[in-house]
Amino acid sequence: MTRWTLPLDRIPDAWFNVVPHLPKPPQPPLHPGTREPVGPDDLAPLFPTALIGQEVSAEPWIDVPGEVLDILRLWRPTPLHRAVRLERALGTPARIYYKDESVSPAGSHKPNTAVPQAFYNAQEGITRLTTETGAGQWGTALAFACAQFDLDLQVYMVRASFDQKPYRRVAMETWGGSVVASPVDDPDHPGSLGAAISDAVRDCAGRSDTHYALGSVLNHVLLHQTVIGLEAKEQLQLAGERLPDVVIASCGGGSNLGGVAFPFVPDPGVRLLAVEPMSCPTLTKGRFDYDFGDTAGLTPLLPMYTLGHDFVPPSIHAGGLRYHGDSPLISALVRDGRMEAVAYPQGRVFDAAVQFATVEGRIAAPECAHAIRATIDEALAAKETGEERVILFNYSGHGFLDLSAYDDHLHGRLPEEQG
Amino acid sequence: MTRWTLPLDRIPDAWFNVVPHLPKPPQPPLHPGTREPVGPDDLAPLFPTALIGQEVSAEPWIDVPGEVLDILRLWRPTPLHRAVRLERALGTPARIYYKDESVSPAGSHKPNTAVPQAFYNAQEGITRLTTETGAGQWGTALAFACAQFDLDLQVYMVRASFDQKPYRRVAMETWGGSVVASPVDDPDHPGSLGAAISDAVRDCAGRSDTHYALGSVLNHVLLHQTVIGLEAKEQLQLAGERLPDVVIASCGGGSNLGGVAFPFVPDPGVRLLAVEPMSCPTLTKGRFDYDFGDTAGLTPLLPMYTLGHDFVPPSIHAGGLRYHGDSPLISALVRDGRMEAVAYPQGRVFDAAVQFATVEGRIAAPECAHAIRATIDEALAAKETGEERVILFNYSGHGFLDLSAYDDHLHGRLPEEQG
Repeated sequence: MTRWTLPLDRIPDAWFNVVPHLPKPPQPPLHPGTREPVGPDDLAPLFPTALIGQEVSAEPWIDVPGEVLDILRLWRPTPLHRAVRLERALGTPARIYYKDESVSPAGSHKPNTAVPQAFYNAQEGITRLTTETGAGQWGTALAFACAQFDLDLQVYMVRASFDQKPYRRVAMETWGGSVVASPVDDPDHPGSLGAAISDAVRDCAGRSDTHYALGSVLNHVLLHQTVIGLEAKEQLQLAGERLPDVVIASCGGGSNLGGVAFPFVPDPGVRLLAVEPMSCPTLTKGRFDYDFGDTAGLTPLLPMYTLGHDFVPPSIHAGGLRYHGDSPLISALVRDGRMEAVAYPQGRVFDAAVQFATVEGRIAAPECAHAIRATIDEALAAKETGEERVILFNYSGHGFLDLSAYDDHLHGRLPEEQG
Repeated sequence: MTRWTLPLDRIPDAWFNVVPHLPKPPQPPLHPGTREPVGPDDLAPLFPTALIGQEVSAEPWIDVPGEVLDILRLWRPTPLHRAVRLERALGTPARIYYKDESVSPAGSHKPNTAVPQAFYNAQEGITRLTTETGAGQWGTALAFACAQFDLDLQVYMVRASFDQKPYRRVAMETWGGSVVASPVDDPDHPGSLGAAISDAVRDCAGRSDTHYALGSVLNHVLLHQTVIGLEAKEQLQLAGERLPDVVIASCGGGSNLGGVAFPFVPDPGVRLLAVEPMSCPTLTKGRFDYDFGDTAGLTPLLPMYTLGHDFVPPSIHAGGLRYHGDSPLISALVRDGRMEAVAYPQGRVFDAAVQFATVEGRIAAPECAHAIRATIDEALAAKETGEERVILFNYSGHGFLDLSAYDDHLHGRLPEEQG
């Protein structure tokens, strides 16, 4: 067997909250003015009550509403594959499994949180959302989700991606979203996730019909993504594995990593590995500190690894990993030694993606290709030592809308790597 | 339940040959010079012996080689979905099922035949293939398949698509294929599948290391696609349906239609419906006659519906349906009344695709959107009569590489429809 599916009624009906399993209790976000812990009232202009509750919850499990399950069922549970042809090509004794989140409507893991976010907002009477998007994976996911609940959507898209990747804009428009390039006030700026967050938060401020939605970083976002790891855990058992030796995912804001890795945090023998681009090395070269989530300093201060909220990463193709900060939950796990992090240059990432496409047939998103690079290196290390390592990585999205990146790689046009 | 999967060992291990089930025996292809039936020797410069044998076989079942199954297993069996959200949006008593061929490496049904074609050629010592491609779905599929068997590949891509859809070229290159725009000798010509076939056949002529591969039209190609219908038949029974009332697919050369529909030919109560673009109405407005498969008259004469081998269809977005002729097997079924055909203008096709994307979350390829249009109309007809019709359509491919078409549709830039 090389693929394990689950019946539709095996979609997890509760999200896994990692908070009770952290080595230390999480530090609270601080108000940007007072530097006091933010309360629900501070967040109410941005988020619905249900999500604010999830943001600070210490409950071990949180129920998934039936209306959300009804929509997740369009593509979940997602398949778990064993990459036997890759194993053979590498000559490794490792067994490589990957969870395929590319089968969602938007082609990535992002709809797992877009759907509940749209649902809770609609339930509280909100009729319009604003958001930012990098490469466009989050924006497409939220556009799809808003279409399900009749919400209007305004997307601020990082200009570098807006210009390089017009197809994702079209996908958002197909689902009824409106898209503009960010920063809106500086047409010569390539943009960044931080700046786009500022634009989206500004648009939302003072409009009672409008809330803001974030595709990563925050606790409730990573919570919604844990369906990935919960399903994978069950599927690995169907595959005859007890637990993986290592769980690998790319990390920008941390949502696909948290999604696949958090359910394994209580299993002490399982290594957890974050993979980031060398040109935006938040976890590997940043400092752990309170910093703003956005460029303009409009958001609460978050306790996280950061390169500084004014850091503008180079225009690499993995737009979803161009973020100065990181999820506070991921940051805490790295700081406390429960999670490792590694950074790769863009060229080596695409080498791995092309090898994976050749032998496994799947063209990965540049973000996801980071996980593939680290997986191949883990499998080669296992070959060195002759170890039967079990590797699980998250195939967070396909690259059909990122083929210009492969074009640049194949024709030697990737810019020189940083670091 | 809204999705039915099959275990990996339920991939059909034999292809279904429709020939013994045709109302009349098929007419042979004729030699373009002598107008005598072509023999195996005439085809040997183009195709391996195994495929020539399949082209003329009257055996009811033909075994799928184990080496081919090993690769098909990367994505097969594909899921069968029930489109309950579309049913609800239409308010129809019809039950709508679709077979999801978009989950393959190339994002369409095309790898189902690309893999066996590459296999049989490699097995007979061929080291290089040439082919044509329209929108690029066939070229990407064959590039993936050639990568599995270490074959070189030269693709002649219809110029209109080469210019409109650069991403599919990049996908072919990612899998190691070489791609040029066709016709090679006229850079101002938008191209057509017929002209690209001429280019590919010319390249192959006189080179003993090189064969030619065709992505549709021929009997062996449609034979390989019957895994679609065989799986769907089994999955419909899992869903509690005896048989569908109607099977629907888009039709250019006929391969996705033949694939899903042929296994239902022996079931007299099942209607079979071909959907084509009004701007290239081969089955609905063509004549049944012997005609060349290509523009230059290099191929054998095939007995089929044709608009004339010098017909150049307008540059519509469903590039895969821009073919002057049609599969002889499909043509015979339409001529003899076993299959129906309908044609739609491009605008109405995209209206259906946007509705499907909104409620079912999936962005279809423009070719596939023709099947969605006809499915919606069948479901609305069932609503008129209050009939519990069971509809099966083939979701032949996703539209992530065709989003420029949606862009044109959403912004009112589709050219005026023909007919």
